[in-house]
Amino acid sequence: MAKQTPRTLSGFMELLPAPQQQMERMMEILRKTYALYGFTPLDTPVIESSEVLLAKGGGETEKQIYRFQKGDADLSLRFDLTVPLAKYVAMHYNDLTFPFRRFQIGKVYRGERAQRGRFREFYQADIDVIGDRKLSPLNEAEIPAIIYKTFSTLGLKRFRIRVNNRKILNGFYASLDLADKAGDIMRTVDKLEKIGPEKVKSILTEDFAVPPESAEEILHFLSASGSAEEVLKALEGFRGRNELLDQGLDELGLVVRYLEAFGVPAENFAVDLTIARGLDYYTGTVYETVLLDHPEIGSVCSGGRYDNLSEYYTEKQLPGVGISIGLTRLFYVLGEQGMLNPDLPTAPADVLILPMTEDLSPAIALATQFRDNGVRAQLYGEEKKFKQKVSYASKLGIPYVVFLGEDEIRDGIVACKDMQTGEQTTLDPKATIYRIKAGLEARNQGAVIRE
Amino acid sequence: MAKQTPRTLSGFMELLPAPQQQMERMMEILRKTYALYGFTPLDTPVIESSEVLLAKGGGETEKQIYRFQKGDADLSLRFDLTVPLAKYVAMHYNDLTFPFRRFQIGKVYRGERAQRGRFREFYQADIDVIGDRKLSPLNEAEIPAIIYKTFSTLGLKRFRIRVNNRKILNGFYASLDLADKAGDIMRTVDKLEKIGPEKVKSILTEDFAVPPESAEEILHFLSASGSAEEVLKALEGFRGRNELLDQGLDELGLVVRYLEAFGVPAENFAVDLTIARGLDYYTGTVYETVLLDHPEIGSVCSGGRYDNLSEYYTEKQLPGVGISIGLTRLFYVLGEQGMLNPDLPTAPADVLILPMTEDLSPAIALATQFRDNGVRAQLYGEEKKFKQKVSYASKLGIPYVVFLGEDEIRDGIVACKDMQTGEQTTLDPKATIYRIKAGLEARNQGAVIRE
Repeated sequence: MAKQTPRTLSGFMELLPAPQQQMERMMEILRKTYALYGFTPLDTPVIESSEVLLAKGGGETEKQIYRFQKGDADLSLRFDLTVPLAKYVAMHYNDLTFPFRRFQIGKVYRGERAQRGRFREFYQADIDVIGDRKLSPLNEAEIPAIIYKTFSTLGLKRFRIRVNNRKILNGFYASLDLADKAGDIMRTVDKLEKIGPEKVKSILTEDFAVPPESAEEILHFLSASGSAEEVLKALEGFRGRNELLDQGLDELGLVVRYLEAFGVPAENFAVDLTIARGLDYYTGTVYETVLLDHPEIGSVCSGGRYDNLSEYYTEKQLPGVGISIGLTRLFYVLGEQGMLNPDLPTAPADVLILPMTEDLSPAIALATQFRDNGVRAQLYGEEKKFKQKVSYASKLGIPYVVFLGEDEIRDGIVACKDMQTGEQTTLDPKATIYRIKAGLEARNQGAVIRE
Repeated sequence: MAKQTPRTLSGFMELLPAPQQQMERMMEILRKTYALYGFTPLDTPVIESSEVLLAKGGGETEKQIYRFQKGDADLSLRFDLTVPLAKYVAMHYNDLTFPFRRFQIGKVYRGERAQRGRFREFYQADIDVIGDRKLSPLNEAEIPAIIYKTFSTLGLKRFRIRVNNRKILNGFYASLDLADKAGDIMRTVDKLEKIGPEKVKSILTEDFAVPPESAEEILHFLSASGSAEEVLKALEGFRGRNELLDQGLDELGLVVRYLEAFGVPAENFAVDLTIARGLDYYTGTVYETVLLDHPEIGSVCSGGRYDNLSEYYTEKQLPGVGISIGLTRLFYVLGEQGMLNPDLPTAPADVLILPMTEDLSPAIALATQFRDNGVRAQLYGEEKKFKQKVSYASKLGIPYVVFLGEDEIRDGIVACKDMQTGEQTTLDPKATIYRIKAGLEARNQGAVIRE
């Protein structure tokens, strides 16, 4: 029979078992951490009606969308988790209790140009808090705590959460009579770090006709630096120019004031006036997270406050705040950088049981006992030479191998070999389970990511 | 602005937060149980190249497939998890260690006629053990243990795992010179329970020209009943007619012999000679699982032994054994039958913290302490009346509400109300955490499914 060459589409991540285990660990940490902050898990369809999914229309993503007909239906695959959330909240409004806090970890689809490290199918891990008409700024202040807890639990230390507030920017530019140019200005100053202040100034004055003295003032405004408190103090010098700016200062002040109570160390946080995020969407606090040793990766967790989640579906005003982690890309980059801790177990089982007798009952009963005690046990029943059986455990990294021969069965004991140290014990099953569990706990110390 | 009515496609399950929590519990149990038996988690793309996914071609599923063009590419959404596994194993053959044991819980897509309880997007939860050329029958004997553990952990007691062996059937029909009619016969006797032996006999003789004496013998063969041992004993009367049949008897004998060591109670198991499953695929032991009080649902977990997983992709012979749970449908049916335990917590948080002072630091620090101790805590910062704040916790079923006013802060204590009993304690934070954790443990007793 002619064979079809098996292949996986380019831009689609398909992991081998060991890295998949690492990915599962990361997802488990995200699920648990998000839950600690009172977010409920959500799952929405991958396919939506195109008219619903693309209600907002236009935009750069539209040509990347996987869109197709099935029968009479015009369907599309979701390209993020925000639009499905907007739909969900508008549709189930009467069944939800607000503020509604949900997390969702799911695959999204974008037919981007194939490129190393760019994915067409990738996981996003999102959290959002949605209010009904109003939403307390406390929710904005809490986001850095969630980012910090998530990344530090994953094992990262050298990262920084950068925060800004769009009201400060919009208020300040309005105070300079530059409200209509705010978008262009923000896009330009976003490059400040890269191209330097002189270049920014010349773009502002030449390309966007910003008066030179305003450009000077913008650069002065942006030059506030140092700790969050120091930046805040510098910004206080601009208070009183504009109501929106003052409101932004209050909100940013709230975020900074409660960092310590939220357990966020000062070194993992910075106020950064150059970040703006999605220009037509965010309206208050905005967030970026960078790995200090890998700035080239860009932000690994971003988001912000918005005023109107579901405006394309409902008249109801639903403000919210949310962040998103591009999980597949993050996992890929961590792997490329050698930052995935190889010492954590990735084996499919904790113990491999090798029956050495014709009657398999004792070996099976032992496996059952292991499993009833939460130890992941695999029975090995293949007809192979002894050496090959043990080598099966080595190849998979299974940490313990148990031998059960006539003698052991007669004496009610179990021979158990630690594959890493070579140490072999002969103990009764209960003591063996105890030993294995203690060993597993030690092996599972340490975080998924190492710097 | 004109609004787009938000809607979810028919045939696509989208759950509200509380049932979603129940679904998550079920998935968590499946992941943990499968892992106990040494299966490694796998994740493969939802989209595959059509030529790869449909290499087998034809079949009834083909017109149900979501297939579309994107640029030059002819793409399809996976319609099960078996074909992607076949591709995966063939493609990554050199990187895998055999026997390869994987589980996968993922969404699959079939454009079925929309109908209540029929889904177009649904989760399958599969496990498979794949051997390289050979695979020990011990793996077949282990499957009922996995099914039993899974369903009993979910909370079911009244279910039965029905097992048969295709070699027994094929061998027996070959011994009657009816090998070429085996498929028709199996499809007919599959209805034995529904239509009775007389009707089966007339279909066999009239529609398929089975000689009357052979039809008699088939019915005699199928009439073996009672406990697994009794059926086996009756089947021994047919031993010696045919090598394949004898081999099947040995394999079935192995499955039955080790049930007890595998911890499978006799009442949850039956040998059923009428089941056959996928006729062109399975070659050894086959499995079905029925809920005794809901036979109308059909099998909730099925599978079997096959000889050649990846024959469309590789010359390598890769025998295996696997089972699949149609999770979305199972969840739907359990909900319809009122079998989802409503007493388990479905709230997004374990405790709602109500700050009663202007300075939020103490309340935030308490939330941080809760979270650091694994208690899911939500800070409530909205400007609402006290009654509305407490009612927020009730509506969501959050079991504990913590009040933190000036007095409590001064005295270093926490007022904590059990929303179910109304009991209120004032203890220090550590004791409060201890109390909440004990309460949560009690609330989390009990299984997801109740009969």
